[in-house]
Formats: sequence, C-alpha cells, structure tokens
Amino acid sequence: MSLVGKSLVGSEFGSGSEGEFKAINPASGETLEPAFGLDGKDAINKATSLAAEAFQSFKLTSGAKRAQLLRTIASGLEANVDAIAQRMQEETALPEGRCRGEMGRTCGQLRMFADLVEEGSWLDARVEHADPDRAPLPKPGTRSMLRPLGPVVVFGASNFPLAFSVAGGDTASALAVGCPVIAKAHLAHPGTSELVGRVIQESVATCGMPEGVFSLLFLPGEQLAQELVQSPEVKAVGFTGSRRGGRAIMDVAAARPEPIPVFAEMSSINPVFITRGAVAARCDAIAQGFAGSLTLGSGQFCTNPGLVVIDNADRDAFVAAIDKYLTKMSCTPMLTPAIADHYRQGLEAFASQDGVTVLGSGAGADSPNPITPTVFGVSAEKFLANGALSAEIFGPASLVVFCDGASDFLKVAGAIEGQLTATVQYESGELESFTDLVSQLESKAGRLVFNAFPTGVEVGHAMVHGGPYPSTSDGRSTSVGTQAAFRFCRPVCWQDCPDELLPKELQESNPLGITRLVDGKRVI
Amino acid sequence: MSLVGKSLVGSEFGSGSEGEFKAINPASGETLEPAFGLDGKDAINKATSLAAEAFQSFKLTSGAKRAQLLRTIASGLEANVDAIAQRMQEETALPEGRCRGEMGRTCGQLRMFADLVEEGSWLDARVEHADPDRAPLPKPGTRSMLRPLGPVVVFGASNFPLAFSVAGGDTASALAVGCPVIAKAHLAHPGTSELVGRVIQESVATCGMPEGVFSLLFLPGEQLAQELVQSPEVKAVGFTGSRRGGRAIMDVAAARPEPIPVFAEMSSINPVFITRGAVAARCDAIAQGFAGSLTLGSGQFCTNPGLVVIDNADRDAFVAAIDKYLTKMSCTPMLTPAIADHYRQGLEAFASQDGVTVLGSGAGADSPNPITPTVFGVSAEKFLANGALSAEIFGPASLVVFCDGASDFLKVAGAIEGQLTATVQYESGELESFTDLVSQLESKAGRLVFNAFPTGVEVGHAMVHGGPYPSTSDGRSTSVGTQAAFRFCRPVCWQDCPDELLPKELQESNPLGITRLVDGKRVI
Repeated sequence: MSLVGKSLVGSEFGSGSEGEFKAINPASGETLEPAFGLDGKDAINKATSLAAEAFQSFKLTSGAKRAQLLRTIASGLEANVDAIAQRMQEETALPEGRCRGEMGRTCGQLRMFADLVEEGSWLDARVEHADPDRAPLPKPGTRSMLRPLGPVVVFGASNFPLAFSVAGGDTASALAVGCPVIAKAHLAHPGTSELVGRVIQESVATCGMPEGVFSLLFLPGEQLAQELVQSPEVKAVGFTGSRRGGRAIMDVAAARPEPIPVFAEMSSINPVFITRGAVAARCDAIAQGFAGSLTLGSGQFCTNPGLVVIDNADRDAFVAAIDKYLTKMSCTPMLTPAIADHYRQGLEAFASQDGVTVLGSGAGADSPNPITPTVFGVSAEKFLANGALSAEIFGPASLVVFCDGASDFLKVAGAIEGQLTATVQYESGELESFTDLVSQLESKAGRLVFNAFPTGVEVGHAMVHGGPYPSTSDGRSTSVGTQAAFRFCRPVCWQDCPDELLPKELQESNPLGITRLVDGKRVI
Repeated sequence: MSLVGKSLVGSEFGSGSEGEFKAINPASGETLEPAFGLDGKDAINKATSLAAEAFQSFKLTSGAKRAQLLRTIASGLEANVDAIAQRMQEETALPEGRCRGEMGRTCGQLRMFADLVEEGSWLDARVEHADPDRAPLPKPGTRSMLRPLGPVVVFGASNFPLAFSVAGGDTASALAVGCPVIAKAHLAHPGTSELVGRVIQESVATCGMPEGVFSLLFLPGEQLAQELVQSPEVKAVGFTGSRRGGRAIMDVAAARPEPIPVFAEMSSINPVFITRGAVAARCDAIAQGFAGSLTLGSGQFCTNPGLVVIDNADRDAFVAAIDKYLTKMSCTPMLTPAIADHYRQGLEAFASQDGVTVLGSGAGADSPNPITPTVFGVSAEKFLANGALSAEIFGPASLVVFCDGASDFLKVAGAIEGQLTATVQYESGELESFTDLVSQLESKAGRLVFNAFPTGVEVGHAMVHGGPYPSTSDGRSTSVGTQAAFRFCRPVCWQDCPDELLPKELQESNPLGITRLVDGKRVI
C-alpha cells in the first residue's frame, strides 16, 4: 500500500481543494513525502451526508455483522503492520517497539468490541410483559435496549497515532454499536492515518457495508473542524487532545441548534499521594517507579503523574531518591516541534511561580526538539494559594507538593480539579487512616490506583478512563474498555410491539441467547 | 401540617428576603392563602453548600439506608395525602382522582427506587481479577461501579405537581443513588410543594441524614434559577418544562467553568401514524381513543398526541369520527392563566398558517381560563414546507396531516424533530410494509407505541421517557422508570485496591449478593 496523500470520503479520495502539507520527522526535523491534500466544506458535506445515508442501513446490521467488520479491520491492520509501524516511527519518533505494541493494543480493542457486540448482552435488553388484567389500568408490554445515536466524528490524538486515532477506541466503539465514523486526522501523522484509514475503507467494502460507514478527512485549522462538528448529520463527537481544543469543541456542540454529546479527553495531572509508611518502607522503589512512569513515552501520556503529594518529613529522602533515578532518564524527541515548545514554555511558567524550586532533572535528549524531564517542588501552602500550579505540563514534568501532615493531604485532594486517575502509595495496615483521602479522591477521579503508577491503562470490562471535568468533558463515560460502547447509544422502548418487528435481542424467544432483565430479574 | 409559606433550606426555613407571592386557584381565579416568601442568593448559597457538605457522607450511605429514606418519604406523603391532595386541587384545578392517583404514582416511584438501590445490581459492578503472570505485562486487578455525581438541582414541573416535582422522579432517583437534592419549586403550586418538601425534610431528619440532603427553594424569576444552576457545588440538573426554559438552563450549564449534565424534558408532539388498514378496521375506536388521549388532563401531558398522520383517502371517515367524539369533550381549566393564554395563542398561530383548517373542536369549559380542544388539518405538502407546524401547542390541540400514500408517511417521519414517543396504529399483517417507517421513527423517538396512544407512561424497568432533542436535552436518558437512576452517576474504577477499602458491592466475597460482571461473565 503506497500513500496517495488524500482524504478518504466514503469510497473515494478527497479533492485536496484547500492546499497541501507534509509531515515532519520530529527526530530529524526533515519533511516526509508525499504531500497530503487538505479538504474543506465540500468534503465535510459529502462525508456527513454519506454517513447519514449509511446509518439507515448500518444501524440495522446485526452485532455479528459489525463484529465481522471490526475483525476485518484488525486483520487488515496486522497485514500492513510493517508499513504502518515504519511510517509511524518516521512521523512520531516513537520507538519501533512502541509502534508495534500500540498496533497490538489497537487490534485488541477492535476484537474486544467485536466480541462484545457479537454476544449482545451489553445492550441491556429489558423485557416487561404486559398484564391486561392489572387494575386500575392494564399494564402494557414494554421492551427496551440501547440503539446507536448516528454518525460520530472522531478527532485523532497526537499521542496515540493508532490506539486513540483513526482506528482507535472511539472509532472501534462507534462502529461496534452501529454508528458511522468520520475521522478527522491529526495532522502530525497523516501517513499513519491514511494507511490505517485505507484499511478501514477496504474493510467496509469487503464486508459489503455502505461506503458512508467511514470517512477520513484532512482538514486545515480549527474553523473547518468546528464546521464538521456543526453538521446537522453528526450526532456525537469523540475527541482526545488539549483542554483548550476540547473545550472549544464542547462549546460548539452545545451551541448547535441540536446540541450533541462530546466525549473529550483533555487534561489530567494524575496526582500520586505517597504516605509516610510507603516512603519509610520503599522510598527507593517508589522513586524508581515514579521516574519511569514520568518519562515513559517522553511523558506524553494522558495518565502521566504530574503531581506528587508527600509529607514534609519525607522530603530529603524522597528528593534524593528521585534525583538518583531521574538523572539517568532521557527522553526521545517529543511528537511535534509545537508540543516540545509548549513543554519548554510550561517548564518556564512553573519555574517562575512563587516558592517553586527544581528538585531534579533528567538528561537532555539529542534531537531537534530536545526536552529535559523535570521535577519541581513546592509547599502545600503555596500550591493551595496558586491555581496555576494545577495546570498540566504535557510531557515529562511533575510537581512535588510537600505537606504538613495528613490534613494537608486532604486539602490538596480537595483543591485539585477533576482527574483521569488518582493514586495512593501506602503500606498495608496504614490505609484505614486515609479513608477520608480515598473518599475525597473518588469524587475527583475516574480511576483510583493503589501502590502502582497511573500510566498503563488496562483495556477491559472494568476500566474507567474518564473523570470529572476538565480531565474529560463528561465524567459519566470512559474512552477505554468495553464500557466505552455505552457512549454512542441511547435507550429505546418498544411498547406493545409485534414480535416480528422487534430487534432480535428483544424478541420473546430470545433467539440470540443474551442476558436480559425480564420482569425485573436478570436472566442469563 | 399547616403551611408556613417559606423555602426549606436544609432543616431551616428561608428568610423570604425577595418578597412574597400567593398561589391562584385556576378554577375560580381566587388567590389562596398563605403568602409564600421568595428567596435569593443567600438561600442558594446556603442550600448548595449544605448539599455539598452532606454529599460527603450521603454518598457513603448504603443502598439499604437510602431505601429507608425513600420509603420514609413515601409513608410520610401517604400519611398527609388528604391535605396534599386538597391543596393540590386548589392550586391546579386537577380533579381529586387525578391528585390522589398522582400521589400513588409518586409513592410508587419512591418505593421502586428504594427496591432498586437496596438490592444493588443496578450499579453494574464489574470485577476483573489481576493476573501477575500475564506476559508481556502483569494484569492489574480492576473493579468498577457507578457512583453518585453530587448535588442535583431539580426543577419542579407545572403539569405534575407530585410525580415530576418536589418528590417526583428526578428527586427520587437522585436521592436513591446518593445525590443531595435542591428542589426549585414551581410557583404555580407552592403549597403542594411545601407540604411535600416538609415531608422530605422530616424524613431526612428521621433517618439521621445530614440536613443538606434536601432543600426546597421558592425563587423569583429566571435569573436566580440560573444562578442556582451556576453554583459550583451543583453537579447535575433535572428539569421538566418548556423548550425555551429548558434550553436556557442547558445553555447556562454548558457555559459554566465546569459544564454539568442537564436532563431536561421539554417538548414533544408525539406523532401518531394511522395506516389505511387501521382506519378501515376500526376508525371509530381510533378516533374515540385519540379524542380521549388528546383531552386527558386538559391535554397537559408531555406525551399528548399533537400530530396525527393519515392517508388522504381516509380523510372523510376519520374527520367525521373525530368530530363525533371531540364535540363531546370538554376540559377542566388549565393549570395557570399563563398556560391557558399560551394555548389560545398557539391555536391562533396555527389557524393562521397556510393551508391549515379546523377539523373539529370540543366544548368550551366554564372557568376563568376557558379552553377548547381543537384539531387542525393540513396536507403533507404544506406541513413539510412549514416548520412552524411542528411546534408544540401545550394543551388539547392536534394537527392531522393528510398524506398521498406511504411515501408521504416516510417524509413526515423524516421531517419531524426528536420526540418522546412515536405511535403506529396498524392492522396485523400490514406492518411489514411499514418497516421503513418504524425504522425512521426509531431514530426520532425514545418510545415506539403500537396500537395504543402515547399518554400513560408505565413506570418500570423497560420504560424510556426521553427522546432526541428537543423532546429532551439528551436522548441518552430517561426520566421515568428504573433506568432514570443512571443519570446522576458515573463509573469509577478501583485498581489493585485492598478489599477492605472497596465498596461492599465490589468486595471479593460479594457480601451484598448482587449480580456482577466477573472476568467478563455475568454472575448472579
């Protein structure tokens, strides 16, 4: 598969009417061939109207049929893994192992959703039988289950060119439940996006689905991205990116004549609270684990530990241990020159804040976009007085907050914004005294981590990768794991509907053999 | 229990600093004693901060404890049913049977949510066991379940002074899941609101809950209602009312520094599609059922059938049958003089539209706010060309759209906005030819009704009372039935958490014996 350098509008290529651009290799600063054509309103209109048309039949496909599509995409990606991983390395400077590992995760997600919708119990099918003899009024028969919302716009992320982009979790979960997808490619990795997009495009054709089930657009600037969100045919949005960008999309979606849900994953500093007992028992191991979590993927993870909370009395021991490991750490180049610039600006902004000191830093990397892992320190008092210190610095930077006892821990936990994760490092037997802390953190985060670090997001049934605003637009959802399927659906009730017109999942004989709630009892 | 005429701010009465007002009996036009004190920012600040404080302990109560609260409220309402029903009649002009019936439904809802949360399986508890030997990386143990969002503001509805107001479905579902409630009373029925609110206030105290679990505010004007929604302590909103009012609340909530979800039920014309076969088989019965559904409760139901779609060829038979039953119908006075005024203005607006004729009307009622049930007619062509004809006239008015064949049915279904319900009246064997119509309607509505009328909303596990915008703010939820509990929650994941710190629902031994998803299998 060689690169064409065009948007994919259903089964066709975009016209590239809005100019062109080339990707940049962040490790070398060199531009990469070929040029990619940018598209505008025409492509948006065509992709969204194809998606709306496709929805009318795609929503009626069986879970098994959509599972086939997802598995065909996964197989197609694996068949092209060498080309995709190579182009991804060139466009992102991420190491080969990471590129191949992310491909494994991406295909795993596709197959996970395939298994989920092929089986069908996730739909929360409910059957309430009629009772014509009920007094004072007869009881109607009602049956409900989840149904797809309609076309979904997916914004590809810079930091996961596969797992959170064109064929990532948002796309996989939307296609799984019966929603066509219009992916907006992240312009930092257009070649990776095109290669993945073409696998999806081919899979749609192979599976006999209407072409509008998938489009991939290269759009210049925010204006056109917002116009895409404003399209009346679009019924939901998935987004992974910055807080500023995510909020802009949220505001556009909320201001539409018909507001639509936006699932934006935006920013998180993922606080790590370390008890006195934990420092006493394993200071060195915690510092090592922290340094590794902080610098993993050059700190470009949404779950990067950007805030550490410890007791003042542990300061010297912890700082010495961090210094020991952090100085050994260097980072590969960041994903784009702009991201590296923002990182350096973030470091400067923190360094200039009242009471903030540099506790340690790693080695600078040898690249056109050198960055240095950095750990700052500040007192709880200064932290609580300065909201600027709660900002995310996207990259391998963290702030250690020194507390005067457990009451400061609680104050810091109460002051932070919504987070994807919150972590407690503790010692067995000690945790009971931190019950209030854990309860406070539960109100702030989507995932509570105990004696581990927040990076590494397990893809499964019980994962929640979504927390209160501003970590995401809406903490009532997750973008990772099977529960992500719920985002692009709504419940529909059929009242006194003839059996033959009901979806199979709701028919009286339960032909698919799924778990249902029948007259209030869960029946497997 | 005699009326005090004050807001309830936690366990205390409001100061009434913003003036006072009296209720009006819509049947007589007379003002009712006593005066009610209006409150402002002070009461808002106090109620919201009490709610936030209460949330810290209320969220940790067991489902059984919250079930006790809900049942105590239900029993308290029943103990005061005579006083509440009498005041409700005076304030609303609704007949006694309706008032008592709505009390039964309200208490039924409270007990339904009590049963739900006492049992606990609704929380979707998920357990994924750790696998330390997994390659290449060990698998962490993850467990997830739903947790409450925080304080919820509930706007009482005019048309259901009990079932969708102070102790209505929004309040019951919020309290059930662990969210404190700040109810904003509808000023059309302040006495009913106070009597119900005081039962809740007393129940909170009886059950040993913190006072901030419930407040009831009388607020003047929209500005203060919006300030209540803007309070940082408020984490979600339930609303039942007009499209204009609901959208204003949605916009305020979306523009907050921390946007919050709004569950607003706003407007719906609940289209009824009647096939040729149905008219041929039972024209008279359908017309009778329609006239009854249209005028029930003076047409003041959110599921009132405001649009009927039939074939041109059935015009004469159907119009004659409607006329036969409609002329017999009269309505009790509407809930408020303002609602009656809006109704009459709506009739005038429709009557002046191009191609609209009056097909029939009922008897005028003898009251200070007389209204006349009215059925208009228009061709599909004119209907499709004029968006104004899709507006809701709140009250006993409906528009019959005459179609040239089944393709017009599809066009009308495609043109309508989001609806709470869509109904098909058909004959057995005939429906197969309407598969496309049913599929189209599924995209437009939350509930599909077959061979019945949309009024009458069954309260149960499979009910969906919520459809695409503008029928509600967010079609992904329901305000009626047990699935309403999902609205005020979000999933939280505990990773590698010590068993004793987990909520009981997630502990390894499953001490509550609830249904859970364990390693991908639903275990009862």
